[in-house]
Amino acid sequence: MNSQIEAYQKRIEAFLDRMLDSAEAPVPELIAAMRYSTLGGGKRLRPLLVYATGRAVAAPEASLDPIAAAVEMIHVYSLIHDDLPAMDDDDLRRGKPTCHKVYGEATAILAGDALQALAFATLLDAGDGLDTDTRLVLARDLAHASGIRGMAGGQAIDLASEGRSLDITDLETMHRLKTGALIRASVLLPAQAGHADASTQARLGIYADCIGLAFQIRDDVLDVEGDPELLGKACGADSLLEKATFPSLLGLETSRHRATELVDEALASLQPFGTEADLLRFLARYIVERMH
Amino acid sequence: MNSQIEAYQKRIEAFLDRMLDSAEAPVPELIAAMRYSTLGGGKRLRPLLVYATGRAVAAPEASLDPIAAAVEMIHVYSLIHDDLPAMDDDDLRRGKPTCHKVYGEATAILAGDALQALAFATLLDAGDGLDTDTRLVLARDLAHASGIRGMAGGQAIDLASEGRSLDITDLETMHRLKTGALIRASVLLPAQAGHADASTQARLGIYADCIGLAFQIRDDVLDVEGDPELLGKACGADSLLEKATFPSLLGLETSRHRATELVDEALASLQPFGTEADLLRFLARYIVERMH
Repeated sequence: MNSQIEAYQKRIEAFLDRMLDSAEAPVPELIAAMRYSTLGGGKRLRPLLVYATGRAVAAPEASLDPIAAAVEMIHVYSLIHDDLPAMDDDDLRRGKPTCHKVYGEATAILAGDALQALAFATLLDAGDGLDTDTRLVLARDLAHASGIRGMAGGQAIDLASEGRSLDITDLETMHRLKTGALIRASVLLPAQAGHADASTQARLGIYADCIGLAFQIRDDVLDVEGDPELLGKACGADSLLEKATFPSLLGLETSRHRATELVDEALASLQPFGTEADLLRFLARYIVERMH
Repeated sequence: MNSQIEAYQKRIEAFLDRMLDSAEAPVPELIAAMRYSTLGGGKRLRPLLVYATGRAVAAPEASLDPIAAAVEMIHVYSLIHDDLPAMDDDDLRRGKPTCHKVYGEATAILAGDALQALAFATLLDAGDGLDTDTRLVLARDLAHASGIRGMAGGQAIDLASEGRSLDITDLETMHRLKTGALIRASVLLPAQAGHADASTQARLGIYADCIGLAFQIRDDVLDVEGDPELLGKACGADSLLEKATFPSLLGLETSRHRATELVDEALASLQPFGTEADLLRFLARYIVERMH
């Protein structure tokens, strides 16, 4: 399974590298900042979910690279903006100085903006064997997953909650939007590309929602007990910012247990699938076992 | 002509108001910031170009509101981000305090991000009588107009040029991307919605490029000799930042003359059109005569 994952990681890296071709850019600083934050790092969880779901539903092979690249570009743009001094003010990301530390704040803001535009351009550009109706649905769903009722809305709840006390329902709502919406899109976009039927899409939606929340719980747990060297960023940031987290509301042990339950639920929803969904199963388990 | 323009301004205001429905937002601060910067102000030049072109090429009436809203949302998001302390650090915009002055930098960054996503969602959502092929082309062209080789790329050239000396060719390239690409999209998107033939699109493209550049020259001239009260923002900002402008490179008189020439060229490219293009003609003249 690990060699498959590595192969997909190399594949998305190569595709992103092509999409971020320096030769096409009118100004070197901007594309350099976009390449710096996008290439050469990260677990590529969202692209892996795209490829794994694409395999599970037999989506057209060529359609998966643009989908994987688009969700990863949205993810990377959100990291660049979240790391800004006005937001989380982080100096390290994926073991390297953050984008604004290297290129300055102005270029980092623009690099995020341009990555969002490039995500849509990548998904909308033709040539991957999808019909226009399907392509339109994918782009529309990605726009909604990124916007007010998705990632940006979740980030706004996160901002509004600093120093206030969230209960567990609010915390789950925040994460369902902030990270959950894009993880859901990483599963449902390839499912739609493969014309999965409604019941299959519903099952994959449950899978995505469960692993999305489990991923976030694991993130919070690692922020408490993780190894900064493995994580590539500082630990304890959440408690410094007095942010509500799963461990702060439920305790470490219950948080770990809840993550495991969610992964079991995710696996159960894949029950009708055969071996074609083994990579999705592997990723679900990886999410609660990962050390970074 | 003025009553038509007012009618279109009211129409886009009402449509934007519906698209930014507070009831739909998971967190009030974010949508409030988006509404603050989007509603109740601005000349609405880009939406007016959309409606005027739509009329010239007899595009489906219902398709024009989403196109007009999408280009305006992209424009407004770029203003919010350009005004940030890390960028131009402006306190006033359209006669009001800038978004980050009212809502803070973090929310302003997010409001811009969410407006970009909403622009694509608005353009991609169904129900305005466009076929999917056309809608896909519109969204793709908007993504390219907003990205590296469009608005974001132009803004990056602008950033990179501060304190350096640009020549007139570099300056025109910068504006062709920074403001020109979105003005071009405001004309070519409705042209495509109306299935204008290639020669008509080429003529409209020339019109858009000429008025886009004329608009920017007029902006630079107004920054030197305009009335801050009419402009709703401070004057002299360009020379304070030692930015290259048309007046600084060509002188005021030659700049004015060049703007007039460009508008003449824009009008000449509309020659085959009858009265259906009168609003486009009016807008071209308005651009060099405006006082704010």
